[in-house]
Amino acid sequence: MNLEHPTLAIVGCTGAVGREALAILEALPPADPLAQVHLKLLASARSAAGRLSCRGTEYEIEELTEASFAGVDLAVFCAGGDLSRRFAPIAAEAGCLVIDNSSAFRMDPQTPLVVPEINAGRLHGLNAGQGGIIANPNCSTILAAVVLYPLAAAFGIDRAVISTYQAVSGAGAAAMQELLTQTRAALDDAPTSPGIFAEPCAFNLFSHDSAVDPETGRNVEEEKMLREIDKIFTSADTSVTPPRLSCTCIRVPVLRAHSEAINLTLRQPTDETALREALAQAPGVQLRDDRAANDFPTPRKAEHGDAVLVGRLRPDPSQPDGLGYDLFLSGDQLRKGAALNALQIARKLLC
Amino acid sequence: MNLEHPTLAIVGCTGAVGREALAILEALPPADPLAQVHLKLLASARSAAGRLSCRGTEYEIEELTEASFAGVDLAVFCAGGDLSRRFAPIAAEAGCLVIDNSSAFRMDPQTPLVVPEINAGRLHGLNAGQGGIIANPNCSTILAAVVLYPLAAAFGIDRAVISTYQAVSGAGAAAMQELLTQTRAALDDAPTSPGIFAEPCAFNLFSHDSAVDPETGRNVEEEKMLREIDKIFTSADTSVTPPRLSCTCIRVPVLRAHSEAINLTLRQPTDETALREALAQAPGVQLRDDRAANDFPTPRKAEHGDAVLVGRLRPDPSQPDGLGYDLFLSGDQLRKGAALNALQIARKLLC
Repeated sequence: MNLEHPTLAIVGCTGAVGREALAILEALPPADPLAQVHLKLLASARSAAGRLSCRGTEYEIEELTEASFAGVDLAVFCAGGDLSRRFAPIAAEAGCLVIDNSSAFRMDPQTPLVVPEINAGRLHGLNAGQGGIIANPNCSTILAAVVLYPLAAAFGIDRAVISTYQAVSGAGAAAMQELLTQTRAALDDAPTSPGIFAEPCAFNLFSHDSAVDPETGRNVEEEKMLREIDKIFTSADTSVTPPRLSCTCIRVPVLRAHSEAINLTLRQPTDETALREALAQAPGVQLRDDRAANDFPTPRKAEHGDAVLVGRLRPDPSQPDGLGYDLFLSGDQLRKGAALNALQIARKLLC
Repeated sequence: MNLEHPTLAIVGCTGAVGREALAILEALPPADPLAQVHLKLLASARSAAGRLSCRGTEYEIEELTEASFAGVDLAVFCAGGDLSRRFAPIAAEAGCLVIDNSSAFRMDPQTPLVVPEINAGRLHGLNAGQGGIIANPNCSTILAAVVLYPLAAAFGIDRAVISTYQAVSGAGAAAMQELLTQTRAALDDAPTSPGIFAEPCAFNLFSHDSAVDPETGRNVEEEKMLREIDKIFTSADTSVTPPRLSCTCIRVPVLRAHSEAINLTLRQPTDETALREALAQAPGVQLRDDRAANDFPTPRKAEHGDAVLVGRLRPDPSQPDGLGYDLFLSGDQLRKGAALNALQIARKLLC
């Protein structure tokens, strides 16, 4: 293995997250450790055709097979849970360190679930070229976690109620196309039929399209947020007690940035200014909170950006003074919610 | 005054709410008390031209003037706060009972603020043909109130955290057109400029476009919800303690139905089945809550309908057993959120 110029595989390079990973790599400054990698672009047989260029080099898109990982030091998997379950262990066995964007291994107690701003310590002792699997969290989880963690670490969060406004990109590139196609049809009064989403998505919104547990009433997305935030906070570099959580996950007709309205109950009365300062200093977070200009986070402001935008920070009038706060965030689902977080993990593994 | 065939004025008959009021009147069964009214269609000078037909009669659209209310028994005002502030007192003075859809009089202690399912008792002693003003609540307020009230009356609600997903219709017919126009431009990669909304509305969402209080951080829409729900519950026919509330109001790219994610803290542990039964029996509410089919309220299912759809009812895992619940609702902003509620008040005044 050549770790001065390690080989990084992108598994699922033609999907929404894979393409975003390539776009991020393309734009890196030359000094970035990730700018030095050799790429290996992998896709399922169905999509493995043609070439893609990145940083001046043309790469052939190769078909993903069991033999794909020989000589690969790092692999970012963004091809869905089924392919991850099948190929990530093969890659790890071949000495490749896998960063898996699917939910397949996230709750495995042996698998680190990492948001670098929170628990990069879980990557200590892991190196590119050494077989293993690291899980990239769910998109809504990551966005909430980078905003909640600095507040939890500084002041303690007892409870958070989260309502999401999730872009269709979380369901992949075809879902983004479905929103565009159905919207054009709606504007033209043309009929549409269900595609990836059972519900019409043009000028509509709906409870997240994942299965609902018949007993708890929670859908899979909500369950992921509860469990993953708990696991990430429990394994954080600075020990924090995870907040109790309730999440409502809603899909909205937005292309690629998720938003979340969050109501907080803190563990101790805290000044609004102190919260604001903690957020202003938090890595990965950008305050966008201008009351006079009504300038707050939106998906359009967040898309194609690296930071999770946070604003509408204000006291909750229904809770005792200093204990309750509301805030609103927007973050790019394909970047910090997926490809960027995975590449940030990859960068840590190279340094 | 002829109260067998009273005269009902629609002030602002060419706007989104005015047109919806006419559509509701058009579809009434002949036996409905409102089907017997003579209409008088009023609009500002700018819009007062042409004719509109309703229930087989053609009406000329007349310009709204100080003399418009002679012989008018009831008037539904849906022309905005400025026109209400100017003309509603004139109409009341002329012996007309005004149902005002603007926020102008809602918090006036002398003015009843009415959701008929909750506090129709506040209409006792008021009759068409007798001068006065009754306020129609804010749209998000009405939708939340018809769902929260039966639960508050039966079990007591200590606290509710509401995140809204508000259609653009709340900003009027021109805002609906703006969403369509900006969306078509976005699909065609054509530039758009801000119109009614400062933020782009195609494939985007944003904190409600009303002014934000520099001290509290709450916008006017959120403040309306807090104050109006308190006033309505305090004047309810069955006395209830109003819940403590925190609201986050967000505008989404949906045409005419609002949705709300609501997290509840009850006053006493309550069985989920009991909540479900209370909602199933609540007037104006329709349960839409099929976990197996993932069939829950959406704007598309709610639009053009009279009921507020409610579903996703489930225990909140962050609160003690039986105390915390989450739910999600969708309701037509132009109907129950505005024109329908106003006409339901009008019907009560005629009976």
